[in-house]
Amino acid sequence: MAAQQREISVSEFFTKNRHLLGFDSPTKALLTTLKEAVDNSLDACEEAGILPNLEIQVHTIADNRFRVIVRDNGPGIVKAQIPRIFGKLLYGSKFHRLRQSRGQQGIGISAAGMYGQLTTGKPIVIESRTDRRKPAHRYELVIDTRRNEPVVKRDTEVEWEVAHGTQVEIELEGSHKRGRHGMGTYLRQTALANPHVEIRFQGPGEEEPNLFQRASKELPAEALEIKPHPYGVEVGLLMRMLKESKARRLGSFFQTEFSRVGPKAASRIVEGADLQMTSSPRRVTLAAAERLIDSIRETRIPSPPTNCLSPIGRERILASLKQQLAADFYAASSRSPAVYRGNPFQVEVGLAYGGDLPADDLVTLYRFANRVPLLYQQGACAIFKSTLTTNWKGYGLHQSRGALPTGPLVLMAHVASVWVPFTSESKEAVAGYDEIIKEMKLALQEVGRKLAQHIRRHRKQRDAARKQAYIEKYIPHIGIALQEILDLSERQEKKIVDTLTDTLTRSRKM
Amino acid sequence: MAAQQREISVSEFFTKNRHLLGFDSPTKALLTTLKEAVDNSLDACEEAGILPNLEIQVHTIADNRFRVIVRDNGPGIVKAQIPRIFGKLLYGSKFHRLRQSRGQQGIGISAAGMYGQLTTGKPIVIESRTDRRKPAHRYELVIDTRRNEPVVKRDTEVEWEVAHGTQVEIELEGSHKRGRHGMGTYLRQTALANPHVEIRFQGPGEEEPNLFQRASKELPAEALEIKPHPYGVEVGLLMRMLKESKARRLGSFFQTEFSRVGPKAASRIVEGADLQMTSSPRRVTLAAAERLIDSIRETRIPSPPTNCLSPIGRERILASLKQQLAADFYAASSRSPAVYRGNPFQVEVGLAYGGDLPADDLVTLYRFANRVPLLYQQGACAIFKSTLTTNWKGYGLHQSRGALPTGPLVLMAHVASVWVPFTSESKEAVAGYDEIIKEMKLALQEVGRKLAQHIRRHRKQRDAARKQAYIEKYIPHIGIALQEILDLSERQEKKIVDTLTDTLTRSRKM
Repeated sequence: MAAQQREISVSEFFTKNRHLLGFDSPTKALLTTLKEAVDNSLDACEEAGILPNLEIQVHTIADNRFRVIVRDNGPGIVKAQIPRIFGKLLYGSKFHRLRQSRGQQGIGISAAGMYGQLTTGKPIVIESRTDRRKPAHRYELVIDTRRNEPVVKRDTEVEWEVAHGTQVEIELEGSHKRGRHGMGTYLRQTALANPHVEIRFQGPGEEEPNLFQRASKELPAEALEIKPHPYGVEVGLLMRMLKESKARRLGSFFQTEFSRVGPKAASRIVEGADLQMTSSPRRVTLAAAERLIDSIRETRIPSPPTNCLSPIGRERILASLKQQLAADFYAASSRSPAVYRGNPFQVEVGLAYGGDLPADDLVTLYRFANRVPLLYQQGACAIFKSTLTTNWKGYGLHQSRGALPTGPLVLMAHVASVWVPFTSESKEAVAGYDEIIKEMKLALQEVGRKLAQHIRRHRKQRDAARKQAYIEKYIPHIGIALQEILDLSERQEKKIVDTLTDTLTRSRKM
Repeated sequence: MAAQQREISVSEFFTKNRHLLGFDSPTKALLTTLKEAVDNSLDACEEAGILPNLEIQVHTIADNRFRVIVRDNGPGIVKAQIPRIFGKLLYGSKFHRLRQSRGQQGIGISAAGMYGQLTTGKPIVIESRTDRRKPAHRYELVIDTRRNEPVVKRDTEVEWEVAHGTQVEIELEGSHKRGRHGMGTYLRQTALANPHVEIRFQGPGEEEPNLFQRASKELPAEALEIKPHPYGVEVGLLMRMLKESKARRLGSFFQTEFSRVGPKAASRIVEGADLQMTSSPRRVTLAAAERLIDSIRETRIPSPPTNCLSPIGRERILASLKQQLAADFYAASSRSPAVYRGNPFQVEVGLAYGGDLPADDLVTLYRFANRVPLLYQQGACAIFKSTLTTNWKGYGLHQSRGALPTGPLVLMAHVASVWVPFTSESKEAVAGYDEIIKEMKLALQEVGRKLAQHIRRHRKQRDAARKQAYIEKYIPHIGIALQEILDLSERQEKKIVDTLTDTLTRSRKM
């Protein structure tokens, strides 16, 4: 048995576990490829302060084969970096920093390229230009999956008419379906959560591109990088940070390596652990590190800074919902930032009710994480679970046990974080951390209460209108009857009708 | 931006993404650690043909700190392999072979050790003995997460009274909860799906160990290793296999590298692609490989061998259910093996109905994959989805839209495969491949129909009994009334009552 023990490369691992990355069916593979390219383009544009314009084409090559081309107007990528960014898994700039972005692992686009290579044998093709004065580069790359390293097949220069940007081209086996899990749905929801983005999308077999127009020329607030917060650190990680830090004294170690730790908090932490501010971080023993962890927990340290987040915002959610959905009533909530395991996050919820929305179906739930639509794995998602366990009956909707409520309602829920804890590498569902579920439920309850008010008011108005209609319908007949029985004049009859109407209307209002 | 691009080690990746491995909460971390150790022990024992005896102790070290100790009577591990098996992620013997086993990736136990190290700073401790004539080794190991390599902290020899086996000891932060997600539940379900296993479990704070006794002395049929089936191969993988094969001719390549390909099928594949049986595999171009893939799809090749699977079996499922659950009715189904992407798999379902089971709750669903209980992520699981979308109303149960049915029912469902496609590395839910959902639904329908028969019969019997009771209750009164009205003798009255009873009872039966 010993002889069979072997090392497994991360590319081999994900080739065999392709469903972990969102490639478990041909339909999903096509969508995931598009998604990874779009995520990267939007992140790149926003980081460079550029309003994103995306040109997307998906061509049908054969029955079950497509070519996906995504081109952005981002800053472009320097030549030397291209092979590893697109041809090596677990390589990137976003993993080791704390700030909100769509990509976070350095896996996505390389995995899409690897899937293309696996199913069609074709390389991933990258063109990129960083500067008007420099040419654009064109690379054809494959991944050596046994070693998880890029192999450059061709490397040329090409003519570009625009000054900067990147184009990714992947050929893959896939299947094109419209509907709930389709590319069109994905891009429409992307536009909903990203009003500053403009997308031109030409799907398979379409003669003209669809335009998702920019609804706002304002870039979202820039998300800044932060340091880890002491409350999220465990003893093993602390030991490693102590060993790797350039700080030469414990006091400066805490102030430079963590967010929100000033001289006072640092001295409380260090002295609370019976250590010296001037001790060397490298010499801290495991027992002392455990005391430091206890001391951190007993020290009051302000919450982490929240400028690492870039929420959509209540007003923009309302505007987006109104633009996209014909409903009677809209509400939105954007909670204050909160923290799970030292990571800031923020929850936002919007809803549209009534109007043309179907009244007899389960409500529709749009889920977003860092402005990216989540189309699969609803059942596994903390957003879904929070929605399921909210008491919608209390807000005037029908709800069976263990099911979403029924009614003419679309819910949109967004989790923004420096580190969204997805349940799987394919980033389809948010893991159920208690703090996230709690915030999500509070946001849902907030819009739920507004919805309940609307439904109650609406019901009252309807009841009132119905009673008013009775009065208007029957009182004249009573007048006529009384006129006949009592032999009244026209004037007397009219007076009785007026008095009755008046009395009944007034009594209804009391 | 370019300067920030960096490589990420797989240990760093999983440290940050610990929820992917099942460590997203303290409760789950404790359970997952136990689970990984148990899975490894059971696999090792079964591979060596040993009836597994497990000794498990979980000690409370502090309020939120536990030490998990799992000892097996397996074959033991040779000294040189211990560091990498327990101190390196993505290392093992199960990844590169096709056969049913609990572990498949070479991640689990190392990840549990890494989590312990992260939260307590303590090494993982391994003791193992392979032979009565050799001493037992004791290793204390940590993982260098930046490099994903084991670091041996101590290496000693220890006295063991037994001839062979392995003991793993991990100290970690965790939280102990009884109930649905507790360690006791996990082990009870493990016993349900593994009647050949004996487990002694002493939980935190318990004075005496619980014994889960062996219900059968028969080891499950040994699962054999198979080669990949041609129907599951894509062009990229085929290219790699062609390059790496030791076969020097295309004809022998197909016969040695794949299962179920004999000389005839090989020549059909090769000639269907306009290639020569004697051509060199290494010289096949991408275009030719694509023709080979097309040709494979057009060639009839028998299904892969299924001796790589080791199902529980219909009879044993029934026996297990009867032993564990006091119900009125039991049914089970063990489907024939089927194939998804070239991988054989097999679905088994059992149910227990009525008796003491609670009638007003949603039904209970026990999910298993390769005999391992799945306690989390029910909503994301193909087993759950298949259950949800089965029409239980047709089988006599209540069911709300989008929810599990209600009724006194426990369902047990098992997917066995050479490669279970889990939705995440934490192996909590089975991915929704169409073939798996189809088989699962067929199995559910099979037991569903049996259940419907039982419920119908039961209902008929109840109705019959109720009518019989009416007859017995009222006819004597009718007799007495008639006796009074018609002034009959006792004998006449008795005769009328008998005749009436007889007539009515007979008429009911028609």
